Amino acid sequence: MYDTIIVGTGPAGFSAAMNLKIHNKSFLWFGNKDMSSKVSKAEKIRNYPGLPEITGQELQAHFLQHAENMDIDISDKMVTMIMKNADSYMVLADNELYEAQTVLFATGVMTAKTLDGEEEFLGRGISYCATCDGTLYKGKKIAVICNDERFEHEVEYLSELAEHITYFPQYRDCRFSAANVSVSGDRPVRVEGENRAERLVLQSGEVLPADGIFIIRNAIAPDTLLKELETKDGHIVVNRDMETNLEGCFAAGDCTGRPYQYTKAVGEGNVAAHSIIKYLAAKNDRKENKSGK
Amino acid sequence: MYDTIIVGTGPAGFSAAMNLKIHNKSFLWFGNKDMSSKVSKAEKIRNYPGLPEITGQELQAHFLQHAENMDIDISDKMVTMIMKNADSYMVLADNELYEAQTVLFATGVMTAKTLDGEEEFLGRGISYCATCDGTLYKGKKIAVICNDERFEHEVEYLSELAEHITYFPQYRDCRFSAANVSVSGDRPVRVEGENRAERLVLQSGEVLPADGIFIIRNAIAPDTLLKELETKDGHIVVNRDMETNLEGCFAAGDCTGRPYQYTKAVGEGNVAAHSIIKYLAAKNDRKENKSGK
Repeated sequence: MYDTIIVGTGPAGFSAAMNLKIHNKSFLWFGNKDMSSKVSKAEKIRNYPGLPEITGQELQAHFLQHAENMDIDISDKMVTMIMKNADSYMVLADNELYEAQTVLFATGVMTAKTLDGEEEFLGRGISYCATCDGTLYKGKKIAVICNDERFEHEVEYLSELAEHITYFPQYRDCRFSAANVSVSGDRPVRVEGENRAERLVLQSGEVLPADGIFIIRNAIAPDTLLKELETKDGHIVVNRDMETNLEGCFAAGDCTGRPYQYTKAVGEGNVAAHSIIKYLAAKNDRKENKSGK
Repeated sequence: MYDTIIVGTGPAGFSAAMNLKIHNKSFLWFGNKDMSSKVSKAEKIRNYPGLPEITGQELQAHFLQHAENMDIDISDKMVTMIMKNADSYMVLADNELYEAQTVLFATGVMTAKTLDGEEEFLGRGISYCATCDGTLYKGKKIAVICNDERFEHEVEYLSELAEHITYFPQYRDCRFSAANVSVSGDRPVRVEGENRAERLVLQSGEVLPADGIFIIRNAIAPDTLLKELETKDGHIVVNRDMETNLEGCFAAGDCTGRPYQYTKAVGEGNVAAHSIIKYLAAKNDRKENKSGK
């Protein structure tokens, strides 16, 4: 069992990871290996204290170098579900289960809107994870929605399994192609079906029947990942110690609300890590008291 | 009238200042010209994201360079009092009054304990400001307590006015000397008197009569600076937007509580600046609505 699992490799997750590392906590850190795509795309960052007039790519390079110096690894497995146990959390990443005493959401903010019907049919014809559920759709006709070109390898993987894919890239300049993949410029708006997802309704009014629908995003809504998590207006509700409504569950960065700023994110990651360290210490104290006389 | 007055030039104040500057707000920034002495004394900072294994002096140099690049000035006037008006704040710095719509506490954390009787006699024989009150003690015998060698010039200024000074440096290796100054290694613990401060009781038990007592610290307790400010256990109470209990008054950094971390401080300074910008915009909207039909 790990001390902590951090979900998300943006500035908040990084700031937390380095503090946990310094304090010798055992942790897994899930997210994109090249950290935040939002950071790398920033043209010019003027307000990151100590690094004047830096481009997003430079800041990202600084972060990655810093993580390497500290020997901190990123696992690029995709986290698709988190479950709360009595005294720990189970995290499902690329269909493998990991257990930790605490979990930290540093997932950034969802820019994409959830589709109507998405939550209703999740696990019944809708999947967030190609690696997990791809084989269920061998020889079938599926639809794939994806908002980040860095996940095109997942579409490719699915194309090797499915008979046919209708692909809806939610980003510009999609260059992905395969013999059995039609790329559509239309926009999915709703999922319909009886007991399972059966068809995708598009903005044009067209209706696409599908055996399965994969939705691959660079972020999953936090309360979709972990059902009991309290959110408000799409943000995770936290207090000043970055504690959520769930014991042992913390959050930091854009996912906790505005302002969406790198500096705020690193600050909150730092506070979250220190709260986690304090929480683990108190928990171990309680255990020792129980096992002692 | 300024948009904002920032008190304190540590990481939190700096982070706020740069964001206010970017948003074209008018502000004054009071504090030590070389920023935080606490930063500069840090041996090795490992957890400031993007600047690995940096010494305190290097981080300070980065901050100062960044501030210079952005053309942000520090005023090293000493803030000794803040008063809340109906719709603005009056800030007394080196005996001059400045007015601002909002005020930001980024004062760091008081490491020195307040003396018994200090608050009671403040303004009646006790002063925090040599420049303000020095001339009141021309030809008199005074005691001066100071916890930072960078303020020795204030002691020197007082020595040119007073007949005699007993000086209590609360730091190591004091090298200050003047003909009419006796440097004491004793520790002041209590101020006594009838209507005014009349004598200083020392740890040794000795009692030193004095016409006036100057206490010159690198930080003044926030609720001594601004009476109505809500504090708890020595920290300013803030919400997630860095708002204090007083409208238009914000706080960021160590003065809001643990963890005492540079990264937390810059994060909170960023959030505070954005809250101030939002507050000013809402206030101006209200004014325009009133003056319109």
